[in-house]
This record gives sequence, C-alpha cells and structure tokens, in this order.
Amino acid sequence: MTNETLQQHRQELYDHLTNELLPFWTSRAADYVNGGFITHFDQFGNDSGEDEKSLIAQTRSIYTYSSAHRAGYGNGKLAELAKHGVDYLLSRMWDEEQGGFYWMTNRKGEVLNNQKIVYGQSFAIYCLSEYTLATGDPRGVEYAQKVFDLLQKYAADTCYGGYFEMFHRDWTLKGPGPAGGDRKTLDAHMHLMEAFTTLYECTQQPIHHRKLQEVIDLLVGKIMHPTYGTGVPQFWADWQVAPQIKFDVIWGWDRFTEDGVKRAAEDNTSYGHNVEFAWLLLHALAILGTLPETYRDQLIKSFSHAVDHGIDWEFGGVFVEGSHSGQVYDREKEFWQQAEVLIGLLDAYQLFSDETYWKAYSNVHRFVLDKMVNHAVGEWWPLMTRQGVPIWTHMSHSWKINYHTVRSMVQSIRRLDLLLKNRNFSG
Amino acid sequence: MTNETLQQHRQELYDHLTNELLPFWTSRAADYVNGGFITHFDQFGNDSGEDEKSLIAQTRSIYTYSSAHRAGYGNGKLAELAKHGVDYLLSRMWDEEQGGFYWMTNRKGEVLNNQKIVYGQSFAIYCLSEYTLATGDPRGVEYAQKVFDLLQKYAADTCYGGYFEMFHRDWTLKGPGPAGGDRKTLDAHMHLMEAFTTLYECTQQPIHHRKLQEVIDLLVGKIMHPTYGTGVPQFWADWQVAPQIKFDVIWGWDRFTEDGVKRAAEDNTSYGHNVEFAWLLLHALAILGTLPETYRDQLIKSFSHAVDHGIDWEFGGVFVEGSHSGQVYDREKEFWQQAEVLIGLLDAYQLFSDETYWKAYSNVHRFVLDKMVNHAVGEWWPLMTRQGVPIWTHMSHSWKINYHTVRSMVQSIRRLDLLLKNRNFSG
Repeated sequence: MTNETLQQHRQELYDHLTNELLPFWTSRAADYVNGGFITHFDQFGNDSGEDEKSLIAQTRSIYTYSSAHRAGYGNGKLAELAKHGVDYLLSRMWDEEQGGFYWMTNRKGEVLNNQKIVYGQSFAIYCLSEYTLATGDPRGVEYAQKVFDLLQKYAADTCYGGYFEMFHRDWTLKGPGPAGGDRKTLDAHMHLMEAFTTLYECTQQPIHHRKLQEVIDLLVGKIMHPTYGTGVPQFWADWQVAPQIKFDVIWGWDRFTEDGVKRAAEDNTSYGHNVEFAWLLLHALAILGTLPETYRDQLIKSFSHAVDHGIDWEFGGVFVEGSHSGQVYDREKEFWQQAEVLIGLLDAYQLFSDETYWKAYSNVHRFVLDKMVNHAVGEWWPLMTRQGVPIWTHMSHSWKINYHTVRSMVQSIRRLDLLLKNRNFSG
Repeated sequence: MTNETLQQHRQELYDHLTNELLPFWTSRAADYVNGGFITHFDQFGNDSGEDEKSLIAQTRSIYTYSSAHRAGYGNGKLAELAKHGVDYLLSRMWDEEQGGFYWMTNRKGEVLNNQKIVYGQSFAIYCLSEYTLATGDPRGVEYAQKVFDLLQKYAADTCYGGYFEMFHRDWTLKGPGPAGGDRKTLDAHMHLMEAFTTLYECTQQPIHHRKLQEVIDLLVGKIMHPTYGTGVPQFWADWQVAPQIKFDVIWGWDRFTEDGVKRAAEDNTSYGHNVEFAWLLLHALAILGTLPETYRDQLIKSFSHAVDHGIDWEFGGVFVEGSHSGQVYDREKEFWQQAEVLIGLLDAYQLFSDETYWKAYSNVHRFVLDKMVNHAVGEWWPLMTRQGVPIWTHMSHSWKINYHTVRSMVQSIRRLDLLLKNRNFSG
C-alpha cells in the first residue's frame, strides 16, 4: 500500500487516541476522595458505582498512563495520574505482612479479596517497571523486584517448571479444580513474559534476563500446540493438557456454559491471544537483543493461524476463538482481541513484508474505528455481535480498562511511524 | 537374627563412635587461631597442612557436631564446637554483598574461590538448620533461609524444573561443559532433598514443605532410571541424560580417566548413592508425614539394586559403581558408600522384614569395623582395594571429613535401638 494509506491510518489512530481515548480517562479516572482510580463506567461514561478496585484495573491503569507518558503523550498529566495510582497501589493493595498485592479492595481501600493471584502480580511487575521507566520514581522498580522475588520463591514449580498461579494470602497454594491450584495457564505465563520484559528493560539485571528467557522457552516449548503453534489455554502441573475450566477467581468475562465448561474444552485457542503472544514475544526478543529469526517458525504459526482462520473478511474484525486446526467456534468480536491484533499484524507486516498482513490489519482497523469505538464517549464497546452490534455495553469495569485500547493505539502508531520512516529511508 | 546379635552390633558401633571417631575430631578439629575447623589430617592424624577451608568441609563439620549433640553425645562439647564452626562460616564464608557462601577460603579466612556452588549451599542449609535444631541458636536457621531464598531466585530453572548448580559469585550461571552451567546432577538434587528436609523440620514452613515435595517428585520422576530406579548422575537442562563428565569445581576425588570422562559415561550408577538416596527419602517422608508405602516401588529398586549387585559377598563391603542393569564396573571400596549403606540397609530391614537386608548389613558392618576403620587413629580409610588394603591414606581433606562416618554411626545406632525396642514390645 501507499505511503498515503499508511499516513491516513496513522492519523485515524492518533486522532482517536488523543481526542477520544485519553480524554475519556483523564477527565474521569482519578479517585480524588479515596486515591487510585475509578474503573467502572457505563456506556455513557457515567460512574456505574460498583464498589471495587481490582488489582488488574489499578495496575493496568498505571501501565496505561505511564506508557503513554513515556511515548510522549499528555504533557506530564499522565505521569501525574500514574503517580496517583502508584500511591494507592503501594499504600492500600500491598500486603506489608506476607508480601505481594491483594486481589481486590473496595473503593475506600479496604481489602475484599486478599488472595495472591499470579496474573495480577504479573501486571504489578509490568506497570511498576513501566512507571519507573516513564517517571524515574524508584518506588516502581523497587516493588516490581519484590514481587519478582516472591514469585520465584512461592510461585515457581521446581519440579515441572513454570509457575503455579493461585495462592492464598500467605502464598500457600490454593486447592484443585476451580480454585486453580493444580493448573497452569497460557495466560499467566504470557503475561509473565510481558512483565519480565519490562522489568529487564528497567533493571538490566542478568537474573531478569534469564527468567525472561526461561519463560519464553517454556511458552514456545510446552505451552504452544506442538503442531499448530497455537496457544493451549490450560495444563496440569506436569504440562499435560487440562480441559479448560472456569476458575473461582477470574479476570475477564469469558464465555463458559452455565456449568463453567468450554464447549471444546481441549481444542480451543484464541486468535487475538495468539497474535498478542507473537508481538509480545517479538518485543521481548528486541529487549533481550535476540534476533526474531530465532523464533521464526513460532511467529509465522502464531500470525498465520489468526490471519488464515480468525479474520472476518465479511464483517470485519477478528473472531473470538476456534480449534487449533482452524475451525471457528465463536464468531463474536471482543474488544481486546481487536486491540492486540492491530499491533501484531503491523509487526507481521514489517517482519515478513507480506501484503496479506496489511490487508488483515486494515480490515481490523476499519472494524475498530467504524464499529468497536463508541465515538459518543471515546472508549470501545467490550463485546459485539459478528456484525458489530454491542452485546455488552459498559465502557469499563474491573476486567476492562484502558490497557488494551490505549496500548493498541500507542503501539500501532509507533509501528506505522516506523513503516513510514523505513520507506522514506529506502525511497 | 537374635536380640543378642543386634545388641552386639549396636555395641560395636557405639564403642567406635564414642571411643574412636568423636575423640579423633574433638581433639584436633578446632582452629583456635583462625576460627573454624582444620580439615586436613594424614593417616596418623597429623595436620597435613593444606591451606584451605572448603565450604563442604566446614558445613559438614558443623552438621556432624550439631547432629551428634542433638543425638545425645558429647556432653555439650559438640555444641560448642558447632558454634565455633558457625561463627567462622558466617563471618568468613558468607558473601555480604551478593549473598550465599563462598566455595573456598584459606585457613586465615581469605577467599580463594568465590563461586556459588549449589552443592555447597545445600550443605549450608542442612548444617545450619541442624545447628538451630540442636542448639536453639537462631542464627543457623536465619542463614539457612537466606540461602534457600537465594536458590529459589537464582538456581531454580523455571523452564524445565530443578536447579542449575554452578554459578559465579554474582549468581550468574557459569558456562557449559566442565564449568557445569548446562548440566543438572543427581548429586546436587539429592542433597537439596536432604537439606530441605532438615530445614522444614526446623521451620515447619509450608514453602519448605512444598519445595521438599517438589524435589522428591523430581528425583523419583526424572532423575532415577525409568526402568531400574537407579540414580542417573548427570543431565542436560531439559532432563535428557548427559554423559558423565568431570567438573572444574569438584567435591570429591571421583575416579575419571585422564581426560575427565567416565568409562561408561551414560550407563553408570553408584550403589552407595542409591542406598543413601533411599534412606534420605525415607527420612524426608517421615518429616513430611508421608507414608513410605507411597514410594514403595522406588525404595525397593534403590535398595535391591545395591544388595543384588553391589554387595561383595567374598571380601565384604559395597562396590563403587556399575551399570543400571547390574554389571559391576568398579570393585574398590569407598568409605562414604560403606557409611551410607549401613544406615540404608537397616532402614530396608526395618521396612521390609527381609533377612537378606540384615545379612547385607552385617557384611558391610564387618568390613567397616574390620577393614575400613583405621583403629590406630580412629577415622576411616578413604579408599581401599576390593580386598581391603588402603589405596588413599588421608584421614581427612576438603572432600572427606566426618559427615559420612559420624552420621553413619549415629543413625545406625538409632536404627538398631529401634529394632531392639520394637522386638521387646512385640516379644
């Protein structure tokens, strides 16, 4: 495609980010009464009142404001917001006695759920490292390292490798089944890769380099499907595939049947998650100083599975999930999958110079800006029908905040700028 | 066998321990000039002058004096000796800057080798936990826990499980090959099991329980031969069997060819090590509160391989090593294998009530007291011909101290007492 097309896409994203997305948050996120962030808004952008502050929503918000500030947005206001969030996180959600961050407080900062969930701890590492990188405040990386050390001591499985994920407040492992103590997931390990990448970027410590490399080897060697290279959601401790179940503690409104079982519990993979994994892997490799070619086979499989099976060429956007071999099971459209696919497809296009990736990107780009964005208020609808009609209508809650949407804009703009720059150099 | 026979064997061990072994050490071990222990003595018990204090020899000495004190020997003198050793260990061998214990100092306490070797760290955990259990001095378990935490952070392999073993001072992994950074060993993992057992006995902390269970699962599931249940000495990081090589940093005078290769580098197992593993496993299970029956198959394989193939029914004692399927490769007699086999065969006899184990015990018992003990000075010869003629003649050096010999006597006496007590109850 032409430079003009690239420039035009870039401008659309930039306008959405700076005129819609960021203003949505800077105008209403800070809780100046109790500290931290309000994270529940309805389709009109009004506070919907739920009395909770989740570790996920607080840490993701800190990441969003820190990373957007580091990328040059906000004229300092986003750094202030990030600091406001860190103050709350460290004073209200950190467990002074047992270490680690609690899973949930109410708005006042009283602890509602004191469990130590690795998924949440990984976002604490991620956002606090990003915060120090963005602002220079050493408190961020200090606590990121504390959490890292706790995970190495309590979460790592020294028999089979990887990390257990669900702990009580005192870091004893929770029970089996829905309590999750007997399982390991793609999701937590992918987000540990993401977190360790930014931690290592911040500290340059050899141990953070090594643990990042180990979790990459684990993801590529054991968590991705041996044939298709697609993500397998759940495993037993010994890395045998486990049927996908719903956990007691969740961080998304994932769709299960009434009894908490997936329709295809042992043959299920998410297109958006696979592409997110691929671009996070590429980013990790860049921070590690490893050539992408080292993981070429994995990257191609992650990207092409989504493009070959997940893109909706009729109505636009990317489907929810399907079988490893390709059959689509769920054709609805989740906000976060669109967001991650935008970034990943630009990476794929840059890496492989294959116009198919551009066409797929452009398809999702149009779906997002024409359907997924609720332009009346500035944020994205959480879930839509295949055709693009909102199913859920909240703009934010404990499991949907601004991390996917803002990151998608910031990272996609960066990639489009790089594509333009490289063309101008070679042209 | 009769109660009288049991009582007679018990008395022989007790006499050797209290009249020969312990006096050998209490009369010459303490270095009152520089602190810590002198650990180099020739066949006459004279200081042979080597200017080194190894982490292994210092920690094993602390273990010996602490455990013998806890078992009721020494009238307090052994606790004093242990404290003398701990003072040196903590003030001279602990790395205040990077954490962990150095591998080697000279007699004055100047660091000769600052590497962090997991094998040595495991003995630090073992002896310091035993020291606190024996004396109540909280410094022991405080430092044992510091080392445990360092191992979880730096040594654990979060990709394939288990622990890497060879580190530079700053806990970065050493290189491949003889540097050992690409390998994992039975030896280190077995001694971590031993160390975590006593650590958990001392702290009763759930995390120490869990990591002990994990290393047991690893040993039984990956490190023992899948068919024979015998110990496989060396592995690559991913638990594929690696040919047995000699490392740059060693903790024994193991017999390799001139170029550091074993004759049967990929089919080699040690009779004494297998029996040591089995009794250490039984002890770990007792501390964990797990029934031995849970690991019955493993225990039978460990014990019976030694009894079926390793006992020298002609000249007495246990051979050095042979193939997993049984063929003996090395018929000489090492001191530590005799020591460990005594304890283990009494456990096997107690557990399975099979007279074969008693006969094997009695055979090794006679070889030890008639041949292996250098009664002129009180300690054991390190290595003998099959017939029982000394090959090496030192009584102690950095890799031979009193841990195997004294522990063997203390633990065997305890087991013989238990056998006698159980008979008197049932009789």
